[in-house]
Amino acid sequence: MKLTVLGTSASTPSKERNLSSILLNFDGLNYLFDCPEGTQRQLMKAKASYMKIHAIFLSHFHGDHILGLPGLLATMSMHQRDYPLLVFGPKGIKEKVNKALELSLLKVTFEIKSIELKQGKILEEENFFVECFKLNHDVPCYGFVFREKDSLGKFSRETALKLGIPEGPLWGQLQKGKKVKVEKKVFNPKDVLDESKKKTGKKISFVFDTLANNSYVEKVKESDVLFHESTFLEKLTERAKETKHSTAKQAAKIASKAKVKKLVLFHFSPRHKETEKFDIEAREFFGNVTAAKDLEEIEL
Amino acid sequence: MKLTVLGTSASTPSKERNLSSILLNFDGLNYLFDCPEGTQRQLMKAKASYMKIHAIFLSHFHGDHILGLPGLLATMSMHQRDYPLLVFGPKGIKEKVNKALELSLLKVTFEIKSIELKQGKILEEENFFVECFKLNHDVPCYGFVFREKDSLGKFSRETALKLGIPEGPLWGQLQKGKKVKVEKKVFNPKDVLDESKKKTGKKISFVFDTLANNSYVEKVKESDVLFHESTFLEKLTERAKETKHSTAKQAAKIASKAKVKKLVLFHFSPRHKETEKFDIEAREFFGNVTAAKDLEEIEL
Repeated sequence: MKLTVLGTSASTPSKERNLSSILLNFDGLNYLFDCPEGTQRQLMKAKASYMKIHAIFLSHFHGDHILGLPGLLATMSMHQRDYPLLVFGPKGIKEKVNKALELSLLKVTFEIKSIELKQGKILEEENFFVECFKLNHDVPCYGFVFREKDSLGKFSRETALKLGIPEGPLWGQLQKGKKVKVEKKVFNPKDVLDESKKKTGKKISFVFDTLANNSYVEKVKESDVLFHESTFLEKLTERAKETKHSTAKQAAKIASKAKVKKLVLFHFSPRHKETEKFDIEAREFFGNVTAAKDLEEIEL
Repeated sequence: MKLTVLGTSASTPSKERNLSSILLNFDGLNYLFDCPEGTQRQLMKAKASYMKIHAIFLSHFHGDHILGLPGLLATMSMHQRDYPLLVFGPKGIKEKVNKALELSLLKVTFEIKSIELKQGKILEEENFFVECFKLNHDVPCYGFVFREKDSLGKFSRETALKLGIPEGPLWGQLQKGKKVKVEKKVFNPKDVLDESKKKTGKKISFVFDTLANNSYVEKVKESDVLFHESTFLEKLTERAKETKHSTAKQAAKIASKAKVKKLVLFHFSPRHKETEKFDIEAREFFGNVTAAKDLEEIEL
C-alpha cells in the first residue's frame, strides 16, 4: 500500500503547496480522497496513474476540495477511459458531477457512478472496505476509513490442487475463513492456509475539514495512519473554532485518544508559511507525527 | 508592459507544463487571456497579483481554457475583492460564470460584469483598447488584439501650468490631440506636448485554438508580439486539420504574412515532449520566433 499526499494547502493554493488531496494505491488500483483544482497535475508529478483511479471520495462540496473534478474527468475522457468510475460525495453528488461536466462541455467516454455518502460501510471489495463517518463542518462533511481485510494466513495453491480443490471461487471462500465442500468432502481453511502468516489488515483514516472533537475518535481508533486536517496553529485556535477547523494541537490530541500509530497533518492555511511549526506544536501531544509536504509518499 | 506566459500545454496539463494562458501587465493592472485549471497557482508562481486583474478574456468554452475560473473567483473572494471584474467570453458567458460559481458554492464579494464577445472593439480605456476577431475552431472561438494607444508626445506639466491650463480633464484632452479653451483662450496640443517624444502604442495579438488560415492575418498585422497556438508539429498536420488546430509551421507562415515583429508559440499538445522542435520547425518560415516556456516573461 502506498499513500501519496498530493497537496497540503487549505482554502487557496500557494506557490509551494497545492490544495489538499490524498491518493491511496492498493493492489494495483488508485483511490483518490478529495479532488481540488490542480489534482490532475499533482498526480502527473507524483507519477501516479489517473487512469487507474477506481473511486474518488469527496468529503464535502467546498470549492477547495472539488474543483479539480471537471479537469480530471476531461483528461480521463481524452485518454478514452472506458470503464466505470465511482464518485462518492455528500447528498447531491449526482447534480454536482453533472455541473462539473456541463462547465467543461464534456461528454464522458465512461460511466460515472455517483454515490451519496451515508454513515457506515460505503464500498466493499474482495480485499478491503471503506467506511464513512460524519465530521463537524459548516456544510455536510465526511471522513473515511480505508480498511484492508485481515488475511487468515498464506494460501497454498499447491496444497489446494493436491487436495483436489479446483481453482475458482472455492479458493476465495477458504481464504475468507469459510469451509467448502468438494464432492461431499469438506475442507477447512486451515487445510490450505499457513496460519503463521496471518495478518491484520492496515487501517488508514482520513479526517477532512472539521472542528476537532470526540465524535469521530472511535471511528479512527488504532489506525495505522491517521490523516487529520490541521488548518491553523495554536495562536489561531479561536479562528479554528469560528470556521470549524482544527489546530495541529487538537489533531494531535485526537490521535493520542484514538491510539493511532502515525499521525499525518495536512490542509494548512496559506497564512502559515512554515509547516514545521505544525509539527512542533503537535509533537508535544503525540510523538509519531509529521506535517506532510506536497508529493510526500508513505509506504506501508 | 510585461507579458507572462502562465502555461503552454494543450488539452491536458503535463508534469512540466500547465494549460495555456497569458497575463498582460500594463500600467499597474493585469489582463488575463484564458483561465484553465491551475491558473491561480501559476499566477502565484509568477509573483503576479490576481487581485490586480481588471479583465479576463476567455477565447472559447472548452474545459482546458476555462476550468481555472471558479477557483480564481473563489480566491479573489476569500481575499475580499470589492471592485468589479470584467469577464469577456463567447455567447453564454453569463451562464458559464454562474455555473462556475454554483460548482464551488461561491458567494462572490465583488461584481462580475460578464460581457459577450463580438467582433470589433470590446473594451476601451484611457490608454489602450482591446479588439476581438473570430477564429476557426469547432466551437465559437475568438482571438484578441490588445492595443496601447499612440502617444502624441511627452506632456509637460510645467508648461501647462505656466500657460494657465488647470490640472484635470483638459490635460487629457490635449494628450489625445484635441484643442482646449481656457477663459476664451484656445490651446493646441503642440503647446504642451514634446512631439519629438511621439510614439506608436504597442500591439499584442493572441490567437487561441484555430485552424490557421488567412481570415485573421489582417487583424494581427504588424503586431509587436503575436502569441499563436501551435498544438502540433508538422508530422501531425492532418490531425491539426481534423481537430481545427495549427502546426508550428502554419503559425510561422501567418506571422510572416502579417509582418509581425515577434512570434511566440504556445499551446503545445502534451504528446510532444520537447518544445524545441516547434521552434525549429517555425524558424524556417519566420525568424524571430520562440516556443514559450511556462512562466516565461517578455518585457516591452
